[in-house]
Amino acid sequence: MATGPEAGMDDGAFRTAEGRISLLWLERLRAYLEAGRDEDVALVMEPLHSADIGDVLEQLEPAERIALVVMLGDRFDYSALTEVDESIRLEIMEALPNADIARGVAELSNDDAVFLLEDLEPEDQHEILSALPTFERLKLKRSLDFPEDSAGRRMQTDFIAIPPFWTVGQTIDYLRAEQDLPEEFYQIYVVDAGYTVLGTLPLDKFLRTPRSVKIDTIMNTTFVLVKAEEDQEEAARSFERYDLVEVGVVDESGRLVGVLTIDDIVDVIQEEAEEDIRLMAGVGDEDVSDTTVDTVKSRAPWLAVNLVTAVLVSYVIGLFNATIEQMVALAVLMPIVASMGGNAGAQTMTVTVRALATREIEGGRVRRLIRREMVVGIFNGAIFAILIGLITWLRFTNAGLGVVIGLAMIINMIVAGTFGILIPLTLDKLKADPAIASAVFVTTVTDVVGFFAFLGIAGLWFGLF
Amino acid sequence: MATGPEAGMDDGAFRTAEGRISLLWLERLRAYLEAGRDEDVALVMEPLHSADIGDVLEQLEPAERIALVVMLGDRFDYSALTEVDESIRLEIMEALPNADIARGVAELSNDDAVFLLEDLEPEDQHEILSALPTFERLKLKRSLDFPEDSAGRRMQTDFIAIPPFWTVGQTIDYLRAEQDLPEEFYQIYVVDAGYTVLGTLPLDKFLRTPRSVKIDTIMNTTFVLVKAEEDQEEAARSFERYDLVEVGVVDESGRLVGVLTIDDIVDVIQEEAEEDIRLMAGVGDEDVSDTTVDTVKSRAPWLAVNLVTAVLVSYVIGLFNATIEQMVALAVLMPIVASMGGNAGAQTMTVTVRALATREIEGGRVRRLIRREMVVGIFNGAIFAILIGLITWLRFTNAGLGVVIGLAMIINMIVAGTFGILIPLTLDKLKADPAIASAVFVTTVTDVVGFFAFLGIAGLWFGLF
Repeated sequence: MATGPEAGMDDGAFRTAEGRISLLWLERLRAYLEAGRDEDVALVMEPLHSADIGDVLEQLEPAERIALVVMLGDRFDYSALTEVDESIRLEIMEALPNADIARGVAELSNDDAVFLLEDLEPEDQHEILSALPTFERLKLKRSLDFPEDSAGRRMQTDFIAIPPFWTVGQTIDYLRAEQDLPEEFYQIYVVDAGYTVLGTLPLDKFLRTPRSVKIDTIMNTTFVLVKAEEDQEEAARSFERYDLVEVGVVDESGRLVGVLTIDDIVDVIQEEAEEDIRLMAGVGDEDVSDTTVDTVKSRAPWLAVNLVTAVLVSYVIGLFNATIEQMVALAVLMPIVASMGGNAGAQTMTVTVRALATREIEGGRVRRLIRREMVVGIFNGAIFAILIGLITWLRFTNAGLGVVIGLAMIINMIVAGTFGILIPLTLDKLKADPAIASAVFVTTVTDVVGFFAFLGIAGLWFGLF
Repeated sequence: MATGPEAGMDDGAFRTAEGRISLLWLERLRAYLEAGRDEDVALVMEPLHSADIGDVLEQLEPAERIALVVMLGDRFDYSALTEVDESIRLEIMEALPNADIARGVAELSNDDAVFLLEDLEPEDQHEILSALPTFERLKLKRSLDFPEDSAGRRMQTDFIAIPPFWTVGQTIDYLRAEQDLPEEFYQIYVVDAGYTVLGTLPLDKFLRTPRSVKIDTIMNTTFVLVKAEEDQEEAARSFERYDLVEVGVVDESGRLVGVLTIDDIVDVIQEEAEEDIRLMAGVGDEDVSDTTVDTVKSRAPWLAVNLVTAVLVSYVIGLFNATIEQMVALAVLMPIVASMGGNAGAQTMTVTVRALATREIEGGRVRRLIRREMVVGIFNGAIFAILIGLITWLRFTNAGLGVVIGLAMIINMIVAGTFGILIPLTLDKLKADPAIASAVFVTTVTDVVGFFAFLGIAGLWFGLF
């Protein structure tokens, strides 16, 4: 029940009951855009939250997106661009004059401004920065100097820092008098003259403590800080682990230089899980709004890797050419063993990759986990060996063939469990991302072992070599 | 750089530089546990944050976990149990007397208490609730009456509500005088006599506004609320969309009954992405700490489904028995076409499933996306058709075989793209979770089409029927 964004819209709600953007609403906007009725466009867009404006942009055709931004002019809230897919953001920003972007960026908080600028071409970035007031420009430049995906890139450089000898009353008076406060803040930092953090204070502490109390008697002296060069995923883990809402960011010398807030971190957490899903499926850093060419480019490398392993696997089958020729039922049955192994391997691998990503596998648990996966492989192998053995016996009225496929199944399931856990663990030890290549390695192993075990055992059993 | 949890530990840090629990630290704890030195155990555990206590519990053997909780006695912080895997939580809680649990639960905030109680057996739940003070018991019972995974289950029932005619000064005086405030809060709710929300006020507003200002002149009148019966995933989407830190929860009559805070929602967001990964890989609601038997139980159903489809696919191959018998190279090559189709289908499916989960596919974008996936299928199909065609030609010195496998590849890649997007979309339309069954359907389609197209075209081309 979002009461906010609907307020002020009497002629047709913006979102349907299921939370999707109303097609009726969208049609009306499109009509206004086509007719060039910019006052009407501004009127329907005005009540929307920047996240909703982002959703609207994603729904429109490319030409309509530009038209919308141009018609809104100075009324367009550039923070909406932080809410759309990267490809749409770049498309819109490339279509607009840099002077307009500079005007829009000047209105944004430091972290949103960095988010918009970081992916632009160096020349455009330079031109926009030059058009900004000196103080803003220097702050943005400092953030942009930190590595991509670091805490320093994501941080907000406005924060409230007070000395430890102030009282609660003094602090409140200062906040009431000060005009240039951050838009929103959740805690106040107690620092020494060199901006080293001595303590933190959540806002509710100020509201429950008498005015005369000294700050250093109520501040939290155990607190979490993150380094500006630290990866944003590391910072996200601190937020998750300690249920934080805001954290201070310090430079190499321990000086407080900014803060990270939970809303930025929620996006990081989401992206991180997303990344694992994509890497495991062999999809790159891809959006639904990417062009066809970009999509082909992002997927072809993974398909190429798969082609190489598939050809390799087919060479393994080729070794048993003569065996298959004598008993064509083997060709009919062989994909079953490989497919079951691939599936079981994917299960183990997924659990392992996620456990590594969330740091759930440490120390003594590893050995316990490997043992469990092997035992699971033996159990499931036995269950499905019996099933497929019976099915095969009935279908081909050949008990021997049933025994052969059953044996191959047990072997492949144990191999699947073992490699499903060892491959991601090894990649992690080698400092590679276990999500990225595990799937390819695991299915290659289960395919090779599946075909080799089945055709090999069959050859021995029926004397076909 | 976590300064907090290390504080007070002079004899060996708790975490290593990489953020893992120090094995040395763990060994010492184990030694204390075995020797029954409960004062030493309490001493090393005392400085730890509840999240760290949770991590320690996960690293220990089952018997050690119980020993740790028993030795700590009343010093054990039960909120640590909200940080461990479900199976470990249940194992510990089943081993402890209900009276101890009741004493521990009484110390917790309402949302943490519900989290611990909700998965217990009804009798245990009842016994623990009965041991609590009436007021606490009623509050917990009301939360437990809301459906599983609803906002009402996750909410915190302590919040601060004030009337609109108060001033900023009156509110601050009230907060300073009131003893029974929630542990942490980020906004204050302005309500009428019937607890209908009239507005919200973030805490920083109180700190920047003079004491004499009336509340109703500064409160936010556009705000987001969630219904208690609403699914927690819906609530999480509101948090993400509007960058919220806290949101009010209302019952059917619009009465404010609790609040949801971002720290609970971060877990929901994490779980939701996690769930998609697991469902796509055919792994149920499984933890790394599950027993072997539970793991077998969770995975076998998916393997059974895979067995059925694999047998189905093998019947399709069986149709071409005679064809393969005449040209055994077909058996050697056929897994390549199926494997490439399966991979391409998984790519499209993954992008679609995640876009559906994050509500990125709406209205006009669907048609555009289907068109894109088909075109991507044609492009990648053409690229890999040429590649595999050449490889096959060189390997078997048979140009016709190269053409056949190339044609089959193009067909299967287009089919993979089309079904990779249509299957999850259809499941979503039918109100099923697109993550759960898409993978099985998509690979069945690409296997069937892959084998059928390749063997069928080969049969026609070489006149083998």
